[in-house]
Amino acid sequence: MKMIQNDLLLRAAQGKPIKRTPVWLMRQAGRILPEYRAVRASVSGFIELAQTPELAAEVTLQPVDILGVDAAIIFSDILVIPEAMGLPYEMIEKKGPHFPEVIQTVQDVQNLRIADPETDLSYVLQAIEIVKKELDGRVPLIGFAGAPFTIFTYMVEGAGSKTFSKARKMLYQEPELSHQILQKITDSTIAYLKAQIRHGADLVQVFDSWAGILPPAQYSHFALPYLRQICDAINEVPVTVFAKGAYFALEEIGQMSCQTVGLDWNMNPKTARKLVGENKTLQGNLDPCALYDSFDNIRKMTRQMLAEFEGKPHIANLGHGVYPDIDPEKVKCFIEAIKEFSN
Amino acid sequence: MKMIQNDLLLRAAQGKPIKRTPVWLMRQAGRILPEYRAVRASVSGFIELAQTPELAAEVTLQPVDILGVDAAIIFSDILVIPEAMGLPYEMIEKKGPHFPEVIQTVQDVQNLRIADPETDLSYVLQAIEIVKKELDGRVPLIGFAGAPFTIFTYMVEGAGSKTFSKARKMLYQEPELSHQILQKITDSTIAYLKAQIRHGADLVQVFDSWAGILPPAQYSHFALPYLRQICDAINEVPVTVFAKGAYFALEEIGQMSCQTVGLDWNMNPKTARKLVGENKTLQGNLDPCALYDSFDNIRKMTRQMLAEFEGKPHIANLGHGVYPDIDPEKVKCFIEAIKEFSN
Repeated sequence: MKMIQNDLLLRAAQGKPIKRTPVWLMRQAGRILPEYRAVRASVSGFIELAQTPELAAEVTLQPVDILGVDAAIIFSDILVIPEAMGLPYEMIEKKGPHFPEVIQTVQDVQNLRIADPETDLSYVLQAIEIVKKELDGRVPLIGFAGAPFTIFTYMVEGAGSKTFSKARKMLYQEPELSHQILQKITDSTIAYLKAQIRHGADLVQVFDSWAGILPPAQYSHFALPYLRQICDAINEVPVTVFAKGAYFALEEIGQMSCQTVGLDWNMNPKTARKLVGENKTLQGNLDPCALYDSFDNIRKMTRQMLAEFEGKPHIANLGHGVYPDIDPEKVKCFIEAIKEFSN
Repeated sequence: MKMIQNDLLLRAAQGKPIKRTPVWLMRQAGRILPEYRAVRASVSGFIELAQTPELAAEVTLQPVDILGVDAAIIFSDILVIPEAMGLPYEMIEKKGPHFPEVIQTVQDVQNLRIADPETDLSYVLQAIEIVKKELDGRVPLIGFAGAPFTIFTYMVEGAGSKTFSKARKMLYQEPELSHQILQKITDSTIAYLKAQIRHGADLVQVFDSWAGILPPAQYSHFALPYLRQICDAINEVPVTVFAKGAYFALEEIGQMSCQTVGLDWNMNPKTARKLVGENKTLQGNLDPCALYDSFDNIRKMTRQMLAEFEGKPHIANLGHGVYPDIDPEKVKCFIEAIKEFSN
């Protein structure tokens, strides 16, 4: 295996001494960059872009070259897992994902297959290989997947929602069926993350984007056990868990066998540190909207954010994906401020 | 002033001894009841219903008679305040509120007027008077308004949003202008709540529905000072603050001069009690989706919820508005379980 020249992210994730804080951004490969929009305009849509390895690799590499981040994250989507399990989706412009068919019955659950990443998701694995070759060890590559509960919400609800009441109704009305779906998603996700690692991912992140819609007791029952299975199964590379909105579960997440815990912008880093404990790296968490502010203020807020994490392992990031209308120069300002002030 | 026969809610809000826990539901006057849908079908839309005092009063009274709740809450909308300030809105079926014009410039802010409730919002005040007469002292009537920050988001964003990034952008780019808007909303809201009280409201609740989209520091800066002004200005009746998602601000909210703090279904009642302190009543917080479960399980979960609040002043409610497709019999089951188990 080739040595990674800038291994700040991997060292930070392992709690090793580092000379400055590493930084990357969720959704760094995306609409903020004109270079991305040019590639995106050359294909029919988001899904075609994600499924074309050469193009997915190209947009994955863009922020490394253009923004100077300390890691690449493979350009893909968390919803490739339902698709690989037999539930295809479409991406509707300005509206988001839509599943023509959703999971409702025992029969639907039986029809779901466990994803075989080498065949069902080979396009992601090929993109990973191209990226690794092009990166040539400059920075590590992050692989990712959705957390089982978040994937479950889409498979049952069929689309984004304000309340996700259809998905949450199933948890109450059909708890056993819900567990069966969650287990199938978990098995698929473990296979998928392991395949990403075999093909070159140096670290993997699990996104529980809808964690915040559950009461704490339900999150402990329907989400955490499956996250735990994933963390326990992945021993090859460091694992990051980002459970957006699950402030109430930080203590339990802190006890899982992941290396890094992602924080959203609502979470207070010092409170989070107390709940998560001393043995994990924390990742985050500047408000994505802070990048609408002036260059001066961005530098000020970034410095303040670093101070809140100071003294313990930290990977700098926003508290959520970067918003598409943010000026790339403001993103660079954030990245450079991290490099300057954490030195 | 006429004595209120069932004064459990008012006694609970004042921390006085009560013989059982009072219960009401956010959105109890609404689509869950066929009787509401019949009235709603007789008018052109939601806004016409809210603006017709006789009909607004009728749907306000329905849950008292049909569900047996311990309070009525006036049927209205938090967005009457922007409208009274000069920014009308429309309610788009299945999409939600939409403001044809939004606040962007200094001129827009100057054009905003402070609402004069006796003229601009007389339809709400008339509805309150009808309800009070019809209730004839059976249960107290709750008045309400949106919190300044939540109203601000609609006035700047123009509609609901996943990220509210336009409204939040203004907080960063135009902090002074944002404060001016927030102050005008606050002045309007205080006048409006005082008018509701003069016309008969026995308690008022302030809904900060979008509290959860701000980082803690911004919430302290742009939301709490205006909530505090409202709490300090209203001395006539008890005040409830419900800041959905603002778990990070519970300690500061606990120091405000309100009587009751509402909890959403993510919040752990015991943790919340520690943060809020001993001197307030807590309100909430069963997961609204729990009412999709069986009658037996609803009784079990309700009993468990009561136990988590036990020993300190509590007003039972869901952690958010009741969802429109919940069976009214399940709602009754929740209400009856509160009455039975807290006795």
